[in-house]
Amino acid sequence: MPMNPHHDGSALYVPEQTPALGDTVPVLVRVPAGTDVERVHLRTTPDGEPKFAEATVDRRTDTEVWYRADVEVRNPVTGYRFLLTGRRGRRWLNAAGVVGHDVPDAGDFRLVTYDPPPAWIRDAVVYQVFPDRFARSAAAADRAAPDWAIPCDWDTPVIGRGPETPRQLYGGDLDGVAAHLDHLDRLGVNTLYLTPIFPARSNHRYDAASFDRIDPLLGGDAALARLADAVHGRGWRLIGDITSNHTGDAHEWFRAALAGSAAERELYYFDATGDYESWNGVRSLPKLNWGSAELRRRFATAEDSLLRRWLRPPYGLDGWRVDVANMTGRRGADGYTHEVAALLRRAAVQTRPDVLVVGEHGHDHTGDLDRDGWHGTMNYVGFTDPVLSWLKDGDAEVPNFLGTPGGVVRRSAPEVLATMDTYRSLVSWRSYTHSWQLLGSHDSARVRTVVGDAARQEVAAGLLATMPGTPMVFAGDELGLTGTNGEGSRTPMPWHRPESWDRGTLAAYRSLLALRRAEPALRHGGLRRVHVDPDTLVFLREAPTGAVLVLARRAPGVPVRLTGLPAATSVYGGADDLRPDATGTLVLPADGPTFQVWRLAG
Amino acid sequence: MPMNPHHDGSALYVPEQTPALGDTVPVLVRVPAGTDVERVHLRTTPDGEPKFAEATVDRRTDTEVWYRADVEVRNPVTGYRFLLTGRRGRRWLNAAGVVGHDVPDAGDFRLVTYDPPPAWIRDAVVYQVFPDRFARSAAAADRAAPDWAIPCDWDTPVIGRGPETPRQLYGGDLDGVAAHLDHLDRLGVNTLYLTPIFPARSNHRYDAASFDRIDPLLGGDAALARLADAVHGRGWRLIGDITSNHTGDAHEWFRAALAGSAAERELYYFDATGDYESWNGVRSLPKLNWGSAELRRRFATAEDSLLRRWLRPPYGLDGWRVDVANMTGRRGADGYTHEVAALLRRAAVQTRPDVLVVGEHGHDHTGDLDRDGWHGTMNYVGFTDPVLSWLKDGDAEVPNFLGTPGGVVRRSAPEVLATMDTYRSLVSWRSYTHSWQLLGSHDSARVRTVVGDAARQEVAAGLLATMPGTPMVFAGDELGLTGTNGEGSRTPMPWHRPESWDRGTLAAYRSLLALRRAEPALRHGGLRRVHVDPDTLVFLREAPTGAVLVLARRAPGVPVRLTGLPAATSVYGGADDLRPDATGTLVLPADGPTFQVWRLAG
Repeated sequence: MPMNPHHDGSALYVPEQTPALGDTVPVLVRVPAGTDVERVHLRTTPDGEPKFAEATVDRRTDTEVWYRADVEVRNPVTGYRFLLTGRRGRRWLNAAGVVGHDVPDAGDFRLVTYDPPPAWIRDAVVYQVFPDRFARSAAAADRAAPDWAIPCDWDTPVIGRGPETPRQLYGGDLDGVAAHLDHLDRLGVNTLYLTPIFPARSNHRYDAASFDRIDPLLGGDAALARLADAVHGRGWRLIGDITSNHTGDAHEWFRAALAGSAAERELYYFDATGDYESWNGVRSLPKLNWGSAELRRRFATAEDSLLRRWLRPPYGLDGWRVDVANMTGRRGADGYTHEVAALLRRAAVQTRPDVLVVGEHGHDHTGDLDRDGWHGTMNYVGFTDPVLSWLKDGDAEVPNFLGTPGGVVRRSAPEVLATMDTYRSLVSWRSYTHSWQLLGSHDSARVRTVVGDAARQEVAAGLLATMPGTPMVFAGDELGLTGTNGEGSRTPMPWHRPESWDRGTLAAYRSLLALRRAEPALRHGGLRRVHVDPDTLVFLREAPTGAVLVLARRAPGVPVRLTGLPAATSVYGGADDLRPDATGTLVLPADGPTFQVWRLAG
Repeated sequence: MPMNPHHDGSALYVPEQTPALGDTVPVLVRVPAGTDVERVHLRTTPDGEPKFAEATVDRRTDTEVWYRADVEVRNPVTGYRFLLTGRRGRRWLNAAGVVGHDVPDAGDFRLVTYDPPPAWIRDAVVYQVFPDRFARSAAAADRAAPDWAIPCDWDTPVIGRGPETPRQLYGGDLDGVAAHLDHLDRLGVNTLYLTPIFPARSNHRYDAASFDRIDPLLGGDAALARLADAVHGRGWRLIGDITSNHTGDAHEWFRAALAGSAAERELYYFDATGDYESWNGVRSLPKLNWGSAELRRRFATAEDSLLRRWLRPPYGLDGWRVDVANMTGRRGADGYTHEVAALLRRAAVQTRPDVLVVGEHGHDHTGDLDRDGWHGTMNYVGFTDPVLSWLKDGDAEVPNFLGTPGGVVRRSAPEVLATMDTYRSLVSWRSYTHSWQLLGSHDSARVRTVVGDAARQEVAAGLLATMPGTPMVFAGDELGLTGTNGEGSRTPMPWHRPESWDRGTLAAYRSLLALRRAEPALRHGGLRRVHVDPDTLVFLREAPTGAVLVLARRAPGVPVRLTGLPAATSVYGGADDLRPDATGTLVLPADGPTFQVWRLAG
């Protein structure tokens, strides 16, 4: 693959990362020497009309020409792309890359003037805990099981699908989480994300019975305050999980609605027969009606709204992950989704300016970002699914990944990149890099089950640690835990069976996350592809502070040969340092599966 | 190119063409025998969440299997696509075609529940007249030229660019148009579209000085009434052109605003210094502020608004083409575009239910359709530009087509199809087929100038007549007139020099438009591609009433061989009828440039 002309939203190409309406900001394009590019034009669409301006040469090096053009930040989201003209024709450079045919504006690069996400998330590594399954404190043993629950020992097998699935109660609690923060520290994470902790009638607690208190089974409000103290005491962040699409049918609001209270009935969708709308037809999850001003008040805008209350001391949550953000506010002709996203994010930011609000989206999220709402999303479609597809064990059966019939199917790297590039190109660089990249969660099969072995899981974890975006580790992945679907992956952490831990995988995760901490380019750099073949991905992460070269292989093959790059020192994976040979070529290792990272000289 | 599994929004695949919210409607997929498809799933995203349902076999023929699935019309625009599973893997079938990697929802097929466009436009062929240049009535000679004008003889060369360009006044008028309706009849058009006819201070009249009367230079209100009578008397339709983005600086509103009237100042964007926003910085075109309730009233919602008044007798315009719809309502942080589109279309429909409202868009329109606003657009990006790129004369210099540096560049058919498919796939079939397809207008170079000769213009006109969408012919194209840019293409019609007419081109347009009238599949059918190579395009237009096969070649080459099709009778182009040979193959002619159409048997 020859090097292509390149631009992305990182600081090398867009020095001004927080543009304001009315600004004029420079953008840069790097054009490798020998590319068929003689002129570069910037195309913008101020107020909806295309406008072209010729870019000028900013600087030349031995290997490339950098062009520069000025973008007038005319609209809240200002799109731009480049027209490359050469002897052999004309091509576009947009967020999807270099394209020979005409392309729609949706793939333009974007400058976003809305308030940026908090700075801390750029350096965050998130660790997801499903509280019932993480750890029990001593107090857990004294708590009586509620009527709905099937009490389980920590070693009881998790039932992945069936009527008992939501009722298996293992009794993990918040003090249990607090007791294991050293594990998180050793792993190298700095942000703890808890799935719901409000009272409910299931082990997953997405069926909240109240938003006003923490489930006593988890230790109640005081336990959250203790956990928050411990997390913040380490300089870390704590993120909660809020269901904006529905409540449980045991929720105080819904009970009052059923009892006939008009104030609460308007929070839901009741029809004339008394029937009500619910999440995917699940009767225990009545859907909230965001057409209701009272809902907006209680949920978000009131000074003591549930959204705001938990962001304040003594809890001081640093952010919310918003459950089923994709459905929130959507119902028939009602389309409040973007309004609600903006409303929630604004209410949260008013409460604490450094808050993070991430919307869950299990499929195509691109239409819901860059709208002054969610700071980012959980990037299942643009990261999880393609990475798992590429690294899938040929024999693994993952029948129903995120609902798609056939589940995860094995695909080659070019197909996987097409998927990644498609979704990446339809959101701003800001939204892309502030979204969570993950290899799995409580809603998916475990990465280990999909890829089948430790070697390929290391490649997956390597991509997690070296690609743009906020890495999120689902608790237990680092120990090589398995699970074939979302519910089945809610595996209790085997603290008491250290002999069962996959120490090699744990060591890989630790080293990879340490590498990410050590290399600013991995957290803030651009992303430039330098090679792809069905079994191999090679890319650069580049920042003003330096650059790293990443090699991911799912199988052995022929060595990749790269020109135009300097010598490079191995910083992960144990391969030799790279030195240009007599022809200026770097020759990369051919074994596989492997994951290697080098720091470029200079 | 093997036949691919296929679906589009036409009646063969979507029997219910006007679905309503709450309906469940069947959709069908045809899968050619021998394709690697064993199962078909329908994917929808009701209320934002993906849902899969397996399609069932509706019927089998010797050559294909038809699958059927039911779509619940849950949201005003209900997206859907298909998952095709075979032995060799899994692919998506969305509006862009069959794709091997994961795709965003923006490319889904769409069922649109908003009120449909009027039925008459499905059978319309539009003829665009630029009134100053079409024809003069006897009365024209008696009219004094206004102060701004440079009076021209009908033979004065048009100045394509310069300070005199908008001032050259040739004196065409509406009675002149009425006098030449027989020409339109012979050509085979049935809808007349007039660029602006309000008083102004330019020959193009996009700088309206009033919306309350017709320019006396054109014959005034009475002449419009006479023309409307004549047009309607033939059973045809008449469409006006309205500037919703700006007025002229001589407009009554703007004059009042300058004089300090608050009611009119709020219609525009004045700043504290008294300066005002204008179209692309052109001071004579002050931009309208759609944040103004008064503007919405005067323009659209009032009972006697300008938009509504001209739709009523004695004028009875059948529709509006809305100028610069892409910029209307967009300015800095203001984003009223979709609101205004819905407002204008609703006000128009309230006035007469069969009205057509088409928004001009010179570039990517896909984000502005399917929003309960414009019925369609002028499809420059998805038709004009790709067709001209494919057929461009290698030597022609068309330096600045619709503003893009480098103008029209020559591209091969696969690139051109990629462009067409990209834009088509991002709007509903309804919006696509109700948009205007054109080879040029008063805003572009003439097709003849771009393609260079009559043979290639015939291919272009052939595509215009046989592709989905409403064909629009810019007056004079049918005579082979030339022009290198928009202003230069505003060529006076050479009525008085019949010896200069390209009779062959005129005959081709007449035959092609007659063919379109004769073949319902060309007006209402689906579109299925069966072959592409750099110089050749072969496609089927298929309807329940029958099917036609279209061959377009820009150059001679090797014969295209097609299997799986019945015998076919030539209906345009003079080639032999097609009969399957011993192997069941149809062999198409190899000469070129050529344009051929056959009607399939059965």
